[in-house]
Amino acid sequence: MDSYLIQVNSQGDHVPLLDIHLKTNGNSMSLGKVKGRKPRWAVRASEMSKKTFNPVRAIVDSMKVDPNPKKAMISLSLGDPTVFGNLPTNDEVTQAMKEALDSGRYNGYAPSVGYQSCREAVAAYYNCPEAPLEAQDVILTSGCSQAIELALAVLANPGQNILVPRPGFSLYKTLALSMGIEVKLYNLMPEKSWEIDLKHLESLVDEKTACVIVNNPSNPCGSVFSKSHLQKILAVASRQCVPILADEIYGDMVFADCKYEPIATLSTNVPILSCGGLAKRWLVPGWRMGWILIHDRRDIFGNEIRDGLIRLSQRILGPCTIVQGALERILHRTPPDFYHNTLSILKSNADLCYAALSAIPGLQPVRPAGAMYLMVEIEMEHFPEFENDVEFTERLISEQSVFCLPATCFEYPNFFRVVITVPEEMILEACSRIQEFCETHYQGAEGAQDLECDK
Amino acid sequence: MDSYLIQVNSQGDHVPLLDIHLKTNGNSMSLGKVKGRKPRWAVRASEMSKKTFNPVRAIVDSMKVDPNPKKAMISLSLGDPTVFGNLPTNDEVTQAMKEALDSGRYNGYAPSVGYQSCREAVAAYYNCPEAPLEAQDVILTSGCSQAIELALAVLANPGQNILVPRPGFSLYKTLALSMGIEVKLYNLMPEKSWEIDLKHLESLVDEKTACVIVNNPSNPCGSVFSKSHLQKILAVASRQCVPILADEIYGDMVFADCKYEPIATLSTNVPILSCGGLAKRWLVPGWRMGWILIHDRRDIFGNEIRDGLIRLSQRILGPCTIVQGALERILHRTPPDFYHNTLSILKSNADLCYAALSAIPGLQPVRPAGAMYLMVEIEMEHFPEFENDVEFTERLISEQSVFCLPATCFEYPNFFRVVITVPEEMILEACSRIQEFCETHYQGAEGAQDLECDK
Repeated sequence: MDSYLIQVNSQGDHVPLLDIHLKTNGNSMSLGKVKGRKPRWAVRASEMSKKTFNPVRAIVDSMKVDPNPKKAMISLSLGDPTVFGNLPTNDEVTQAMKEALDSGRYNGYAPSVGYQSCREAVAAYYNCPEAPLEAQDVILTSGCSQAIELALAVLANPGQNILVPRPGFSLYKTLALSMGIEVKLYNLMPEKSWEIDLKHLESLVDEKTACVIVNNPSNPCGSVFSKSHLQKILAVASRQCVPILADEIYGDMVFADCKYEPIATLSTNVPILSCGGLAKRWLVPGWRMGWILIHDRRDIFGNEIRDGLIRLSQRILGPCTIVQGALERILHRTPPDFYHNTLSILKSNADLCYAALSAIPGLQPVRPAGAMYLMVEIEMEHFPEFENDVEFTERLISEQSVFCLPATCFEYPNFFRVVITVPEEMILEACSRIQEFCETHYQGAEGAQDLECDK
Repeated sequence: MDSYLIQVNSQGDHVPLLDIHLKTNGNSMSLGKVKGRKPRWAVRASEMSKKTFNPVRAIVDSMKVDPNPKKAMISLSLGDPTVFGNLPTNDEVTQAMKEALDSGRYNGYAPSVGYQSCREAVAAYYNCPEAPLEAQDVILTSGCSQAIELALAVLANPGQNILVPRPGFSLYKTLALSMGIEVKLYNLMPEKSWEIDLKHLESLVDEKTACVIVNNPSNPCGSVFSKSHLQKILAVASRQCVPILADEIYGDMVFADCKYEPIATLSTNVPILSCGGLAKRWLVPGWRMGWILIHDRRDIFGNEIRDGLIRLSQRILGPCTIVQGALERILHRTPPDFYHNTLSILKSNADLCYAALSAIPGLQPVRPAGAMYLMVEIEMEHFPEFENDVEFTERLISEQSVFCLPATCFEYPNFFRVVITVPEEMILEACSRIQEFCETHYQGAEGAQDLECDK
């Protein structure tokens, strides 16, 4: 926007009285001059707003392609399990909200860190001997996004850095850069089910490192770290004395053949802020109910970090009180079958999708173990038509009306991410179209042969 | 918190495997040294968390007094109309929420600025010929607090300043200081029903002024600006080319003998971000449904400020989707009687309270015209026992079990604020106790006589 000069002597019909008065006295300009301020409009957006950058939106917005009008659009791009209606939340969850509404007790302000009773309920739900929790260890937030924002805001100053997984959820970088915090990306290894390259991680730590973000189960990978791998991550953090910000929003969302370990249950000394919420496991991401669990076995965070979190929470005053009022019932009365059912659908979709994509020449899916995603490598050498994953996924839209996020969105080119919460028939149809797409564009008979030997 | 040194060679029982391995190799310390980083724990809270300071909490927490055990506590301190149950929200509001829940359509992520349909509903509700609004002019936020936070964050850079009313709502300063924005206080004049001292306001503008915050109706004053006063404020903003951040969360909450004018309806050129929400008028402050209305008749904000707000909204993703889903119905179906009833209760309480406090020697209430508050001057010369308003209100608690906020919380010493949303009998009982308190401590027969002549 160019700066906009208001003509002081021609302001239109509704000139306020005082202004007329001053103008007739010829004081208007001189008042401005006395203050050394030019009376001209030049309202600019702040640096912070300019630094707040969502790479997913930028990349997706740049993908100006229309789907194939002959094929119905199938979007496997959005990490929102509610889009297709096949994964409704549980009736107990809805009933708990109605009960909170009817009680009339949850319309007023809650404390900025949440109602004491809700903090107790969350603490009791996640409390265990290895990682004990009390109400004072819980800060309720407006979704897991705000939990991550508060955790970053309390741990890092501008000029410090944080270590972030690559591939990883883009919000970490968006938030950090908006706060003037540097982001250093540590590698995950697809060939090892997306375990962290621990040497690389440790090599990035320096005296300005404020925390390591550990996202488990992972978006976009759908990977789940083993107990021993988590212990090794903790060993790095312990050795380097760097706290952990654990993004555990997909906590407990792991398939039956796998076990989820909250990283705090394995830590004896590393202080951890674990961020979670109702979004994914209870299938209500829009409700914006998140939390930070403060794990600080050795009093390293101490009162300073706790007080800092409480102070920061006062800026926007936490989550909707109706959801808070429903929270205890949601945690305690949601039937176990509900969780199992969600996971069995996800597991089944993951298996179907993995099997179908594995059979496609030029693609290398990585088998997921939890969360709601699956990452697929594109063997770009077999698709010389396309410059990169963005172009590959663009053309997949225009030819097959299938939309997957290019993993450039997660700082990981030459992969794309598939969301596996969609109905089974859509997964199958999408995989079949991806197959048609790849078969159309695949090049290199020798490569194709190699690939068949692998399977 | 003191920094905490982890003994690298005595970490207790659960030492992670990798750590042992490295220690036996003697690499642990050297790794740290190579990086120039000492392996010791020193996690400090960020500067931003330290700068986030809530003066109300600080002052209230410092008031360590117990109420008189012989008298039930009456708290007139909290700006929350739901506390006593005498002002429930309307059934239509609750029903709208249940409808949104039952539809199952509002569990997923909304766009970070809110559902398009909700933005349309808010735009339609506030649209008028003098200040036209479309969906794109509305940003939904997690309560009016986040609306103010986003508005400040997009308009001001660290090192700039904002002009804030004194007395005024403490959140402006809390947010600004946490962002490194300087706060300049402009005076309101109790003798002129808390109108702005416009000369003082204008004298504070300099080349670093990012915006003027105009809070109308006012917390803590309960004042409502006339059309002509608002025009004069706009004239200052126009002459100085400073945008306005209008905190209009108490919009339309004015007593029958008074008219509320949204400031944007009177502006022909000054760009305005008007912050509002459901909190006060619909009596559901805990639900955290707020909004920013972008008024930019002359395209001074332009796309830059709009895009900045959209980018900033992506940091925590807006309000609870169930409330969003209910919003259109809440705005359209809440019966007018509900608003009238609330206002008539507030007006009646305000009149009772004003009359009762006016009759008390040593107190000078200022008659409110809207919102939910009334400010009372303490003629401190008649209460030599007390050093200031904080001590006065402390003793009012310990002797009479009545809690009013000392106006030092609002940067305005020697006043206290009364919340008038409590049930009538409590207002009367509180006023009677305040009278007893003042009569006990009032000194100076001459002063008392003067006072009686005034009435």
